[in-house]
Amino acid sequence: MSKFWSPKVRELTPYVPGEQPRERLIKLNTNENPYPPAPGVEAVLREFPADHLRRYPDPESRALREALAREFGVEVEQVFVGNGSDEVLALAFQAFFCHDRPLQMPAITYSFYPVYCRLYDVERRTLPLDDQWRVDLDAFTPDSAGVVFANPNAPTGHGHGREAIAGLLERITDVVVLVDEAYVDFGGESAVPLVASHPNLLVTGTFSKSRSLAGLRLGYAVGSRELIEGLERVKDSFNSYPIDSLASAIGIAALEDREHFEACREAVITTRERTRTRLESLGFRVLPSQSNFLLVSHPEHDAAQLFVGLRERGILVRHFNTDALSEQLRISIGTEDEMDSLIEVLETLCR
Amino acid sequence: MSKFWSPKVRELTPYVPGEQPRERLIKLNTNENPYPPAPGVEAVLREFPADHLRRYPDPESRALREALAREFGVEVEQVFVGNGSDEVLALAFQAFFCHDRPLQMPAITYSFYPVYCRLYDVERRTLPLDDQWRVDLDAFTPDSAGVVFANPNAPTGHGHGREAIAGLLERITDVVVLVDEAYVDFGGESAVPLVASHPNLLVTGTFSKSRSLAGLRLGYAVGSRELIEGLERVKDSFNSYPIDSLASAIGIAALEDREHFEACREAVITTRERTRTRLESLGFRVLPSQSNFLLVSHPEHDAAQLFVGLRERGILVRHFNTDALSEQLRISIGTEDEMDSLIEVLETLCR
Repeated sequence: MSKFWSPKVRELTPYVPGEQPRERLIKLNTNENPYPPAPGVEAVLREFPADHLRRYPDPESRALREALAREFGVEVEQVFVGNGSDEVLALAFQAFFCHDRPLQMPAITYSFYPVYCRLYDVERRTLPLDDQWRVDLDAFTPDSAGVVFANPNAPTGHGHGREAIAGLLERITDVVVLVDEAYVDFGGESAVPLVASHPNLLVTGTFSKSRSLAGLRLGYAVGSRELIEGLERVKDSFNSYPIDSLASAIGIAALEDREHFEACREAVITTRERTRTRLESLGFRVLPSQSNFLLVSHPEHDAAQLFVGLRERGILVRHFNTDALSEQLRISIGTEDEMDSLIEVLETLCR
Repeated sequence: MSKFWSPKVRELTPYVPGEQPRERLIKLNTNENPYPPAPGVEAVLREFPADHLRRYPDPESRALREALAREFGVEVEQVFVGNGSDEVLALAFQAFFCHDRPLQMPAITYSFYPVYCRLYDVERRTLPLDDQWRVDLDAFTPDSAGVVFANPNAPTGHGHGREAIAGLLERITDVVVLVDEAYVDFGGESAVPLVASHPNLLVTGTFSKSRSLAGLRLGYAVGSRELIEGLERVKDSFNSYPIDSLASAIGIAALEDREHFEACREAVITTRERTRTRLESLGFRVLPSQSNFLLVSHPEHDAAQLFVGLRERGILVRHFNTDALSEQLRISIGTEDEMDSLIEVLETLCR
C-alpha cells in the first residue's frame, strides 16, 4: 500500500496467471499448444529485416486485420487486434460494459473477467452453471450491461453450438454479447457467422492456443463495424501501436498455413479423447471438452494432493483455489508422450 | 456513435499519431531513429527458436527488467516494462493520477497526456511554458493529483537539468512527479539518479528513439518499489503478459550494445546541430533542442504551407493543428543525406 497510489489501486485483486516454471517440467497448466507454430513463422524470423524495427508499425495493423478478415470472411473494418486477447477483452470491457447496470457472466468462467470488472468499476451478476457444468444461456437476461462468457467455457471445456448462441442473440439485442472463443478451434463451433446479422455480437479469439503463439501476444475481435469502432476509440486513447511489426508479420504467416493449423488441432483433439478414456479408466470424472484441456476430478483422491503429487514427479497441471473448483484439476493436452507420462504418474498416485 | 458503447466512449478524443505513409518519402515526422538497431538485434532474429513462441512469456518480464536495472543501477523491483512507453504512461495515469484533484502538466507537451486524462476522468490543470518555450517548473504546485511532463519536452526539445528536477522534487513530495524521458538520450540529463531519494519520482523511457526500435513497442518506468508495485497491480488487472518473448530478447540485445547506442546518438546530435545552423541561415527560428527533433518557425513563411510544399517534394515533417503550434514545424533528425534533401527543398520554398 502506498500513499501515491490512486484510491482504486488499493482495491484491485489482480488476475493470477498459471505458473511459468523455470525448471524443466511437463507443462500441462496453461493450455499452450504442444506443437510448434507454422513453418512460415520460422521463415519470418529468419528473413525479417532488423532495420524495419526502427520505424513505428502501422497503428491500424491493417495487414494483420486483412489476413484475419480473409480468414473469417468479413470486412477489415469488422476486425480488431490487440496485444493478446486479454488486452482485447480489457478494452472491450471499457468500450461496452461500463454502464449503470450489472454485467452478466457465468459463475465459473475465465477468471480474468471479474478482474476487469474491478478495474473498470463494473458491477457483476454471476449465474450458476447448469447441472452438467454447462453455461446456462437461458439464465442471461436483457436487463444488464451485457453478457460475457467463454465458449467453449474455461476451465470446464463445454461449448455451445452456433444455434444456441443464435437463440441467446434473439433474446438479447440491446447490449453487447461477448463470446470469447479462445478455445473454439479444438472442436467448438464459432459464432463468427452470426456477426453479420447481430450488431451486438462481439467474438474474441487468440493466436495463443490453436496457432501455437502464446509467446507472441496476439488476440483479435470480430464484430459489427460499430463495435469495432468502439474498440478502436478506446485503443487510440490508450496505446496507438499495440501490435509490433514482427508480431504482425508472424501472425500473418501463422494464418496462411491452414494445413499446419488443421494437423495440430486434430492431433490435440485425438490426444484429448485418448487421454479422457484413460483417465476415466483410472476412476476420474472427466467433463466433456471441446477445448485443449480436460477438467477432471476423482471421487477418492483430493485434487490438491494430486496436484502436489504430480508436481513432485515433474508434471505441472492447474489447480484453482476456489470453493467451486477445489476438487478439480485442469489438465492441458500435451503431446502423446507427455500424456503417457501423466497417466503413468496418475496410475501410481491413484493406486 | 453506437448505442452499444459505454457512455464514456462517446466523449473520447483519441490521440492522433504521426502519419505512417505507404509511399516512399523522407520521413521526418515521428522522431524515429535514422540508424538501424544494434547488430545484436539481427542476431536474435536469426537465432530465436520459433518453437519458443508456443509458450507464454514470463509475465514478470524478469530478464528484460534485470537488463534495464543493470543499465540504470537500480534494483529489478524498481523497473516496470510495458508495450511501448505509451502503455506505461497510460497505466501510470491509472495507478497514480486518479484523484479528486487536477493533474498538472505544461500547456504544450506530449499530446497523449490530455487523451489519458479523458480516458481516466482525470481533471487537468495546464501551465503555460515560459517566454523561452521551456517547461516552467516553478509553476507546479503541491496541491494536485500529480505532475507530468516530458523532459526534454515535446515538441519543443528543451530539457531541464537534473538539479532543476531535484528542486521541483523538494517542493512536491506527496504526489507522483512523472518525468517522461523518451528523448533524454539525445543530450538531456536523466532524472533516474534522483529516484533513490525521491519515492514519488517516476521516470519513463522508451526503446523507440535512441534504441531504434519503434517497431517493437518497448517502454519502461524506473521508480521506487512502491510506485512500481502500483503499476504492476494495474497491469496485472489489465494484461498479464504485455511483453512478448521476442521483444524481450531483442530489447536485451539492444541494451547490451553500448557502443552502437553511443555512436547512433552522437551522430543524431551532430546532424541536429548542423541542421540547426543551416535552418537558421535560411531565416528559421529554431528552438534549442536536446532531442532528436527541431521545432522551427519562419517569420516570412506559413508553417502549414511549408508542410504541404515539403510533402509535395517527398519530405514528411510534422505540423500540429493547434493554435499554440500552428506556426511551427517539428522536424525529426534523419541521416545527413536526408537533412541535405530537406535543406535543399527548404531553400527553394523559402526563396
